Amino acid sequence: MTNPSLLILPGDGIGPEVMAEVRKIIGWMGDKRGVTFDVSEDLVGGAAYDKHGVPLADETMAKAQKVDAVLLGAVGGPKYDDLDFSVKPERGLLRLRKEMDLYSNLRPAQCFDALADFSSLKKDIVSGLDIMIVRELTSGVYFGEPRGIFEEGNERVGINTQRYTESEIERGARSAFELAMKRSKRLCSMEKANVMESGILWREVVTHVGKDYPEVELSHMYADNGAMQLVRAPKQFDVIYTDNLFGDILSDCAAMLTGSLGMLPSASLGAPMANGRPKALYEPVHGSAPDIAGEGKANPCACILSFAMALRYSFDMGEEADRLEAAVEKVLADGIRTGDLLNDAGVTPASTSEMGNAVIAAL
Amino acid sequence: MTNPSLLILPGDGIGPEVMAEVRKIIGWMGDKRGVTFDVSEDLVGGAAYDKHGVPLADETMAKAQKVDAVLLGAVGGPKYDDLDFSVKPERGLLRLRKEMDLYSNLRPAQCFDALADFSSLKKDIVSGLDIMIVRELTSGVYFGEPRGIFEEGNERVGINTQRYTESEIERGARSAFELAMKRSKRLCSMEKANVMESGILWREVVTHVGKDYPEVELSHMYADNGAMQLVRAPKQFDVIYTDNLFGDILSDCAAMLTGSLGMLPSASLGAPMANGRPKALYEPVHGSAPDIAGEGKANPCACILSFAMALRYSFDMGEEADRLEAAVEKVLADGIRTGDLLNDAGVTPASTSEMGNAVIAAL
Ligand SMILES: CC(C)[C@H](C(=O)O)[C@@H](O)C(=O)O
Ligand SMILES: CC(C)[C@H](C(=O)O)[C@@H](O)C(=O)O
Repeated sequence: MTNPSLLILPGDGIGPEVMAEVRKIIGWMGDKRGVTFDVSEDLVGGAAYDKHGVPLADETMAKAQKVDAVLLGAVGGPKYDDLDFSVKPERGLLRLRKEMDLYSNLRPAQCFDALADFSSLKKDIVSGLDIMIVRELTSGVYFGEPRGIFEEGNERVGINTQRYTESEIERGARSAFELAMKRSKRLCSMEKANVMESGILWREVVTHVGKDYPEVELSHMYADNGAMQLVRAPKQFDVIYTDNLFGDILSDCAAMLTGSLGMLPSASLGAPMANGRPKALYEPVHGSAPDIAGEGKANPCACILSFAMALRYSFDMGEEADRLEAAVEKVLADGIRTGDLLNDAGVTPASTSEMGNAVIAAL
Repeated sequence: MTNPSLLILPGDGIGPEVMAEVRKIIGWMGDKRGVTFDVSEDLVGGAAYDKHGVPLADETMAKAQKVDAVLLGAVGGPKYDDLDFSVKPERGLLRLRKEMDLYSNLRPAQCFDALADFSSLKKDIVSGLDIMIVRELTSGVYFGEPRGIFEEGNERVGINTQRYTESEIERGARSAFELAMKRSKRLCSMEKANVMESGILWREVVTHVGKDYPEVELSHMYADNGAMQLVRAPKQFDVIYTDNLFGDILSDCAAMLTGSLGMLPSASLGAPMANGRPKALYEPVHGSAPDIAGEGKANPCACILSFAMALRYSFDMGEEADRLEAAVEKVLADGIRTGDLLNDAGVTPASTSEMGNAVIAAL
């Protein structure tokens, strides 16, 4: 039997730092748990642009298609702000999502008990919060054609196209319903069906798919009201299904409710490969955080928990994932924290690497 | 000299109830302040559909074009959920916005001192909050063509078009910069220039317009980060300028931060008419609230404060507007409140009409 394979793409900013801690954990799993991964590493984003002139080299893309799972750190940074649109760091990530056809993006917004105080929201509004946002990731306005900046009369016009076929809406909806079945059997779908025809089709298809999941209580909400309700009373939600652009905004809003962005992982899943595993990419929700990059201050937990999601969703190692998640929670409860999770100026924050070591010790 | 003219469109749900309180105030202004308006009233939304089979009759549209300002209550309700897209209540409102060319939508998100406790956010995060969101209101994905649900192969596809010309971006930007000049001279523009070409053009044009306002400190933020920052630390913002769809979501998010949706007004402004007044429509941010419609429970303050915005922006009666706003604040501080602004089950809430009477008493 061959070892499961992982492609690691640390990317830019704090990406390499937080990924180094994941590598320690992968090493520990080989040594202590007899679970060995074939790990390769490559460039994405600005780092790839610096070397290859493109944010994702074709060879890297080919590797990503072949491995069992991709782990990505973060892309982007001010250094690349003035690059042409076509070679911006983000295009590397978007190419991975599109060509691997990772249509279902799972973004948990979970409030860790030990960290409820860090939320800008009142403790009782967020403590115990545990939402799963399923964001359609390969269609919609992110990829629709026509797109671009065109001449029209004597001025320019910027155009993007929101575009959803029934099957695109449907496959994402199925993944959301499946998740709802494993959780509290409640699913809320969000769109702007009162203003956009694509939202009307969205609502229709989700309702239709819902007939295959009679146990799931399905509701619909306009996305603007969704943003309001997330702020007002986020615990009313369990699983949320929404499109690529609304998902981008609503999942960031939900993530920030928890107050601990440095803790939040994500999984982007596609269709099953020949070996039965889904195409998959895992990445922390936080970005490249150029302001603290290279200083050893970054919180590696989101990246570590993204690896835990990989264990669960790609490698069917739910118990190993539980163990890793429990270790992270224990470290937090013990008060070992990076600077983003500390209020008290008197306490010395743990470095990125100390945090990683503490997780291993807790394992 | 002719009296300034007002077209009142109460609309659906709680619209008529809250508008009745505004009419009392208009009456009071005529009696006590010698400011008389020529008021006419008509139907919009579901109410118009019930009578005319369309959510805005052509005659009503023609009237709206002629008056100095339109005051609108709210549109929509579950009764109309299954109507065809083309005659949904929302289409009446969208037709008014588009045909009156109300490109600049001002949405203040203000946290009233007396009400800071009602926010789901911690008091220190929101108390004193005073943001102005300027939302472009007549372009973008709300109106872009092509749009619709089309057959493609053997399935359907839902399409909407995000579309912004330079001049559309520019005129909204100018109104935002003008507002910033009157406030703290800080403007943050939000788009997704990392993903959408329309966002690239947006950023470019706003930057260009900014050259005419060298005193205004201009910043740019991706809209997903904008949602996060609004939740994390909203007081970092003063004026925000964003597009129609992002503005819809971000302004609702910002509104909910204040915890008192029932307090928030809005103004939608267009180009100056022959008399120098801008085309204008004023409406509360809250919706039609079908769940409490007809029960005399609705908070009329948002609608009253929308009328105050009309006094300020359409009729150059800044002092009258200040007076009305102060009266509303006094009533709140005195503890006279509708049910949405009460936590204490022991206190009897004021009815919609009692609240309106209290504002008049305070005047
Ligand atoms: C980096 C960027 C392209 C990306 C997106 O817009 O999808 C990010 O915001 C995210 O949510 O993963
Ligand atoms: C009622 C609806 C059409 C409208 C919109 O989407 O613009 C509303 O949500 C708003 O924000 O004014």
